[in-house]
Amino acid sequence: MMKKLNDRIVELNAPVVVGLDPQLAFVPKHLMDEAVAKNGESLEAVAEAFYRFNTAIIDQICDLVPAVKPQVAMYEQFGLPGMNTYKKTIDYAHEKGLIVIGDIKRGDIGSTSTSYAIGHIGKVTVGSTTIAPFGEDIVTVNPYLGSDGVMPFVEVCKAEGKGIFVLVKTSNPSSGELQDLTVDGRPIYEIVGELVEKWGKGTGDGGFSCVGAVVGATYPQMGKRLRELMPHTMILVPGYGAQGGTAADLKPFFRENGTGAIVNSSRGIIAAYKNEKYSTYGSEGFAEAARAATVDMIEDIRNNAL
Amino acid sequence: MMKKLNDRIVELNAPVVVGLDPQLAFVPKHLMDEAVAKNGESLEAVAEAFYRFNTAIIDQICDLVPAVKPQVAMYEQFGLPGMNTYKKTIDYAHEKGLIVIGDIKRGDIGSTSTSYAIGHIGKVTVGSTTIAPFGEDIVTVNPYLGSDGVMPFVEVCKAEGKGIFVLVKTSNPSSGELQDLTVDGRPIYEIVGELVEKWGKGTGDGGFSCVGAVVGATYPQMGKRLRELMPHTMILVPGYGAQGGTAADLKPFFRENGTGAIVNSSRGIIAAYKNEKYSTYGSEGFAEAARAATVDMIEDIRNNAL
Repeated sequence: MMKKLNDRIVELNAPVVVGLDPQLAFVPKHLMDEAVAKNGESLEAVAEAFYRFNTAIIDQICDLVPAVKPQVAMYEQFGLPGMNTYKKTIDYAHEKGLIVIGDIKRGDIGSTSTSYAIGHIGKVTVGSTTIAPFGEDIVTVNPYLGSDGVMPFVEVCKAEGKGIFVLVKTSNPSSGELQDLTVDGRPIYEIVGELVEKWGKGTGDGGFSCVGAVVGATYPQMGKRLRELMPHTMILVPGYGAQGGTAADLKPFFRENGTGAIVNSSRGIIAAYKNEKYSTYGSEGFAEAARAATVDMIEDIRNNAL
Repeated sequence: MMKKLNDRIVELNAPVVVGLDPQLAFVPKHLMDEAVAKNGESLEAVAEAFYRFNTAIIDQICDLVPAVKPQVAMYEQFGLPGMNTYKKTIDYAHEKGLIVIGDIKRGDIGSTSTSYAIGHIGKVTVGSTTIAPFGEDIVTVNPYLGSDGVMPFVEVCKAEGKGIFVLVKTSNPSSGELQDLTVDGRPIYEIVGELVEKWGKGTGDGGFSCVGAVVGATYPQMGKRLRELMPHTMILVPGYGAQGGTAADLKPFFRENGTGAIVNSSRGIIAAYKNEKYSTYGSEGFAEAARAATVDMIEDIRNNAL
């Protein structure tokens, strides 16, 4: 899957993924009003509004970018109806030819991690019937439990041709509380980076292993170091835009040939219509505003990061 | 909620939580056959069989223990129907007077962690309507992203009178890959243990803060040290039984007065009928076998751990 992702990035010349992280504050009033008129003030109303919001944006960006990254927390927050929209969003993105990175940050031990892996990027077997419950192409994984937590995902990746991104250095201000602690002079994020290379070893297709890494745009120096330490690793870079990372900050995350990283933007794209710069689109034009912001982001990265 | 949990532990003299982690291999054939006859070989069939399995066990153990701990991965593995059974299991356990610890091991940053917290232990507001989407009493949380990931849960705990258990030292063999690394001579799990005390500070009700810790029964020496480092922290102890921890190993996790910890057993209870010792119950008597195993576990802990 990492080869497919890289191929699409190169084909579109767009190392960009759009984060589908809907919030009530982002959904235009007309969508929410219509959903409430039909479903009352309910989880179902939010789920329906989110689905219409997501599909309109997917329609506008599916020819521009290789992938979308729905953040499952935004859906899980609205219970079962929310999770239903998460699943339907994955299916709709697939219909439109997009690779789906599920930002689930799961991680547990042994058979429990296997259950998460099977549920999200694998298949369950009921009697003689095989079913892919969620069907993402790639998911994010938390490494705190060590190899026991990550290897079950790697096994499913190998069997199904899927991928994972392991959290190495996250983009948030307090990420350093654990991740920057130094062990014999070396920070934890480097140690996890080396584990990522180890976990992915021998799974490479097209120069990238099935185990990628999450490294925040807000920490470019660490990105440079991790790019060196993880030569076979695709890096997913959150933190561009709203979180403060600039395109120039992104340079160290890429290989010299301009591959090896994919940059996420969520609210900078999906809530673009609320930004002064794209305000002429209005709330009715939220999806077109998202397209314009995506075009601008791709340009910015082509000109300043590659 | 930690006070309520402690009160119930003391009342029942049973610092034990039953892990509701159903697997296809544990569900008796007659339950699965009936569910498939009705729903075909589908996710719905598994979800229905899991629900009947869980409710029969809850009926048998609800007067013995203060709490159950459903592991969400086991449900999430079966997609939306599985998640529906997760939610229905929470509701059923509440009807039977049990405290519900959702073993979700979530953790993300800022607003995303807030979304998880609200969805699981808080409430969302849609227009003028307030809804608790999942409604657990306590959930488990992963600390890899630092305070940004944990504090949103603490805020919701404070507002709603709920609790969390933060992963400190997990019970699995490779937990040491990250958690045992030493920083200036001190292992990461101690540093996280101190963060747990800090995160919970000022939230105490009845001597326990709203922030508990997960520390595996398989590491009793570390449990002893962490018990000292975290005087206001309730400890959730997985790893008893199937994972190798004995009741004698559990002693250091408790305060001198016998409070301060709650021990989980999952397959040792819910799959007891498959164990030689309880095999006379047969698969039809799986729930009665679970009750017998719970009685034995409580006895074992009273006699050897307190």
